[in-house]
Amino acid sequence: MGNCQTSSSRPKSTDIRISLPAVCIVWQTAMIILFGVFVRYNDETDAHWGEHMRQKNITSHVENDFYYRYPSFQDVHVMIFVGFGFLMTFLKRYSFGGVGFNFLIAAFGIQWALLMQGWFHSLDPVDGTIKIGVENMINADFCVAGCLIAYGACLGKVSPVQLMVMTLFGVTLFAVEEYIILNLIHAKDAGGSMTIHTFGGYYGLVISWILYRPYLHQSKRFQGSVYHSDLFAMIGTLFLWMFWPSFNSAIANHGDGQHRAALNTYLCLAASVLTTFAISSLSKKGGKLDMVHVQNATLAGGVAMGTAAEFMITPYGSLIVGFCCGILSTFGYLVLSPLMEKHLKIQDTCGIHNLHAMPGFLGGVVGAITAATASESVYGREGLVNTFNFVGEFANRTVNKQGAHQAAGLCVALLFGLGGGALVGGILKLPIWGDPEDENCFDDETYWEVR
Amino acid sequence: MGNCQTSSSRPKSTDIRISLPAVCIVWQTAMIILFGVFVRYNDETDAHWGEHMRQKNITSHVENDFYYRYPSFQDVHVMIFVGFGFLMTFLKRYSFGGVGFNFLIAAFGIQWALLMQGWFHSLDPVDGTIKIGVENMINADFCVAGCLIAYGACLGKVSPVQLMVMTLFGVTLFAVEEYIILNLIHAKDAGGSMTIHTFGGYYGLVISWILYRPYLHQSKRFQGSVYHSDLFAMIGTLFLWMFWPSFNSAIANHGDGQHRAALNTYLCLAASVLTTFAISSLSKKGGKLDMVHVQNATLAGGVAMGTAAEFMITPYGSLIVGFCCGILSTFGYLVLSPLMEKHLKIQDTCGIHNLHAMPGFLGGVVGAITAATASESVYGREGLVNTFNFVGEFANRTVNKQGAHQAAGLCVALLFGLGGGALVGGILKLPIWGDPEDENCFDDETYWEVR
Amino acid sequence: MGNCQTSSSRPKSTDIRISLPAVCIVWQTAMIILFGVFVRYNDETDAHWGEHMRQKNITSHVENDFYYRYPSFQDVHVMIFVGFGFLMTFLKRYSFGGVGFNFLIAAFGIQWALLMQGWFHSLDPVDGTIKIGVENMINADFCVAGCLIAYGACLGKVSPVQLMVMTLFGVTLFAVEEYIILNLIHAKDAGGSMTIHTFGGYYGLVISWILYRPYLHQSKRFQGSVYHSDLFAMIGTLFLWMFWPSFNSAIANHGDGQHRAALNTYLCLAASVLTTFAISSLSKKGGKLDMVHVQNATLAGGVAMGTAAEFMITPYGSLIVGFCCGILSTFGYLVLSPLMEKHLKIQDTCGIHNLHAMPGFLGGVVGAITAATASESVYGREGLVNTFNFVGEFANRTVNKQGAHQAAGLCVALLFGLGGGALVGGILKLPIWGDPEDENCFDDETYWEVR
Repeated sequence: MGNCQTSSSRPKSTDIRISLPAVCIVWQTAMIILFGVFVRYNDETDAHWGEHMRQKNITSHVENDFYYRYPSFQDVHVMIFVGFGFLMTFLKRYSFGGVGFNFLIAAFGIQWALLMQGWFHSLDPVDGTIKIGVENMINADFCVAGCLIAYGACLGKVSPVQLMVMTLFGVTLFAVEEYIILNLIHAKDAGGSMTIHTFGGYYGLVISWILYRPYLHQSKRFQGSVYHSDLFAMIGTLFLWMFWPSFNSAIANHGDGQHRAALNTYLCLAASVLTTFAISSLSKKGGKLDMVHVQNATLAGGVAMGTAAEFMITPYGSLIVGFCCGILSTFGYLVLSPLMEKHLKIQDTCGIHNLHAMPGFLGGVVGAITAATASESVYGREGLVNTFNFVGEFANRTVNKQGAHQAAGLCVALLFGLGGGALVGGILKLPIWGDPEDENCFDDETYWEVR
Repeated sequence: MGNCQTSSSRPKSTDIRISLPAVCIVWQTAMIILFGVFVRYNDETDAHWGEHMRQKNITSHVENDFYYRYPSFQDVHVMIFVGFGFLMTFLKRYSFGGVGFNFLIAAFGIQWALLMQGWFHSLDPVDGTIKIGVENMINADFCVAGCLIAYGACLGKVSPVQLMVMTLFGVTLFAVEEYIILNLIHAKDAGGSMTIHTFGGYYGLVISWILYRPYLHQSKRFQGSVYHSDLFAMIGTLFLWMFWPSFNSAIANHGDGQHRAALNTYLCLAASVLTTFAISSLSKKGGKLDMVHVQNATLAGGVAMGTAAEFMITPYGSLIVGFCCGILSTFGYLVLSPLMEKHLKIQDTCGIHNLHAMPGFLGGVVGAITAATASESVYGREGLVNTFNFVGEFANRTVNKQGAHQAAGLCVALLFGLGGGALVGGILKLPIWGDPEDENCFDDETYWEVR
Repeated sequence: MGNCQTSSSRPKSTDIRISLPAVCIVWQTAMIILFGVFVRYNDETDAHWGEHMRQKNITSHVENDFYYRYPSFQDVHVMIFVGFGFLMTFLKRYSFGGVGFNFLIAAFGIQWALLMQGWFHSLDPVDGTIKIGVENMINADFCVAGCLIAYGACLGKVSPVQLMVMTLFGVTLFAVEEYIILNLIHAKDAGGSMTIHTFGGYYGLVISWILYRPYLHQSKRFQGSVYHSDLFAMIGTLFLWMFWPSFNSAIANHGDGQHRAALNTYLCLAASVLTTFAISSLSKKGGKLDMVHVQNATLAGGVAMGTAAEFMITPYGSLIVGFCCGILSTFGYLVLSPLMEKHLKIQDTCGIHNLHAMPGFLGGVVGAITAATASESVYGREGLVNTFNFVGEFANRTVNKQGAHQAAGLCVALLFGLGGGALVGGILKLPIWGDPEDENCFDDETYWEVR
């Protein structure tokens, strides 16, 4: 299999027969213990719900949050497991790793996220336990999305043990930055342009930069797609695209909040598709389209609408954002990715810079501008208070100040992504994780029994 | 690649590097401008919803139409993008075009449909703007379905620019015929047997007839499926089949209307499956089944239940319709399609005549009969008024008259399909659209970078 | 094609050109007649719903059960047709049969189940008709799941006619055992660990045992998967995994019941994934993972949570169940399946013993323990009564007694599976059903036109 000395200074073992089972069993056991100590049903999942209804004068079961959010949760769940999973099957011989490791780390991540986010957001002050229900399930899926984005940059180049470590730290960092952005800074980010996409994108890019592989071209035979692997990837693309309105509206306010977030996202995504096809066709001889663009850049509109979807951005405002994102993201695949690999030494397998990092950052900016330009005439006094949650200690915040805080939140997400990526990248560089040689990247044979 | 003179009188260029980007960018820009001028949030998506609730004495957010219709919307959305998209991946080398162009034209079509349908149905008389919410999103998806059906007849033989033109006109024609059928004639058609399937089916068939390709056999090497392309198509089939109850119930009346429409469609589709398998097996030596039938004819029951699903057609009535449709549609694939190609010069790639046009027409007839035989004893006075919306100027309409109007609606759909197809087919025959030579049809190489 | 004498004592014909159409047409006709005689809309699907609302003082359409259960129904529907269907596409040359026959028998089974379950559960005492709505649709899908599990054991070795017979009897047996378990014994089993998985699993295993094929190794060339067939199977796996929370909560009590069932299942499944990956990696040289385990054992947590999901099993209790199931099920694939084939002569194509029978049985045990240890301090008096439906003749039942009855229910499910399998296996052994020779098993050529 070639000369090891040319490809890497150290011979590597990809044997994970001890490390992967150990990580899975030990961490799952830890989850059970921590859940036993900390996690309980909340009012709406507990069998005391009937008494709770009477105390709160709730007259119908339909007021249980389950009925407001569970359909959206299921859509989000599909995005996480089928959407991200199948989007990463596009490589000709790394489809098992794409969908399989995505499955593994998401299943671990949601458990750890329930704990981490629970400590920050759902802690019962009386008994010190975390009370969970459907909203926590959605938030856990969201949190994991950040880690799956980061996986996209490293696809085919890391071991499953590394991915587990990346997820452990990713979820932890996410919970902290989310707490700072949403609670301390009081920025709004229902669809996570900042907390999920900006953070996750830069987190993954920095890790990929630190794990730079100078001889990656030696596994060139496994790079790229084949006809049917591109079709499998389209399954991922379409489920992400179709359910993104649910993603951005899943934890928005009941009523008009969820309704508006879904509508804005729907429009933004539609516009992204047209400009993606336009730029893709324009860039190639004969106007031929590139599946990579269709699979990815069409989704950029959903990313960029993650902060502003619940705001009164207007239908045409949503279209404008989508219009720009399709162009920007396709341009990224055409121009920026090659440049980044050549000059910045960032090998970004799935192009998450173009699909998540840039559009996420743009979404944060759009959110700040939309917030800063909000007005009582557009929202109504009550609508303004509800949308931006100007209550309690934030009752006197102005929209201008809110805009500034949105921008501050974006910076926090960016810094956590960069800093967290540097930290975790350093850890993952240790020669103990079973990652493959440069010449064996993108090959399922490494970690799977392939028939 | 053979002698051009034998295949076509004019040498063709399939270069769409200018035309496709131009169409996408210009039309998307036009959408933004028109949305800016015309489209606004409706009461239920606007931040003033809280005030609106108080004015209307609505006590719970769950009364926002979002919670009645959004789960159905998402199912419809999956049908449009994954259902239609993957159903069209069955060809061995045109799967990119099937799912990719479906994606492009649906994303354009929903925007244009929001405008066109908005002008006819959701225009605010006070300020002249279109007010949109989740029901508009569903209707836009429905409208696009008509164009995607038409694409099925032309699959593999047209350029993406032609498809965009076909969608532009298709949506426009749809909005007009829908307005005539639903508003002027006051026919009921919640699942669109008439407005969507009959119109879309004949629209596509006439276009395909006008674009007849005498030398299509020269691309025979690309016709037909391979093992895995048939499996990709089954993804489309199953998502269409499973979610058709949501399609037919998505815009039905709240309460029993949606509930009954879903149940009737569920039953009808189940019966279609059995008769499809029966006829398919009966038609081949050894009783071998044909994937084409399973992929398509099993869906005919959903098409034919599009008008009557919300009526009291009874559970066994639904089964009878499904029983007939499975037979009729499979028979169409076996007998009618070859005849139509040979004698009528209609090359119908996906067999939309068998899946949409015929069952849609049948569905219109079933709807007319079911309406004409409705009675107060079955519906109750109130149920009859609600189901057929016998209010306002239609308060005195009898069920017999309603039946006649249903039949009139069906004729309108048919005429719009035939006439619209002739018009648009003529336009698409112009030698400027970049469509392929007869010998290069059904080949993704023409418009895609294939690795 | 080899020497018939060595493979089987009787030459077989796989011609189903008469038998399959006959079965489909006759049975479908019977369904129409029986539906005509027996099946009517229930209060919530009937056009008299408006009057019903007034009589019952229901003030909002949202109280129609459609809005509580339809989103869950659609998820269940996806599990039945795409989940089970695509999970069975993993064989390299039997994918058509996997997804296609699954489609056929499920479409028949839901009709027959509506009748059978209707006679036992939804019979109107006044007029002797069956009144149906969305809950019946869910239950019909559930009932069919039992038969599809049984199909998994026989995949590739039976004819579609045999499958129809297996479904006819399977649904019948299911309805009876379900009535005994839920109504007479008054055990709770919302997600069907006992009624669906234990019954369906042993039903299929016994049939497979009776239909033992000594020369099955002669079709070895068709056994096992190829790269892309494993990816198609992952579509099935993921949709089952993602929507299992909906499966276990679909017919649970409104409010906290559905909410808690979804949450518990979500947690249990996540834990299953980690232990499945752990054991799979541990079992192979170099720690390589096996797709068979990932496709199947990850789902065992959902099966085992079928009874206890709606109970107050606690979040960490759910994780423990999932932890054990992932290990148990993977262990089954590694150790038990080969032993069962060798020593017990049970050829279990999909390994349903590991995915359904064992975890289902375990789920029944978990349910019995959880019920027996329930207490008023945990549930509240009202919660206890609601969760276990301690009303009417069961008002005085203690939790200990409930636990014993749960265990009794499990025994009934097991006995029906074993006994029913023996009966139906005997019928299916008759040489009239068109099943393939041992050397032609697992080959789509037998029953499909393969291009």
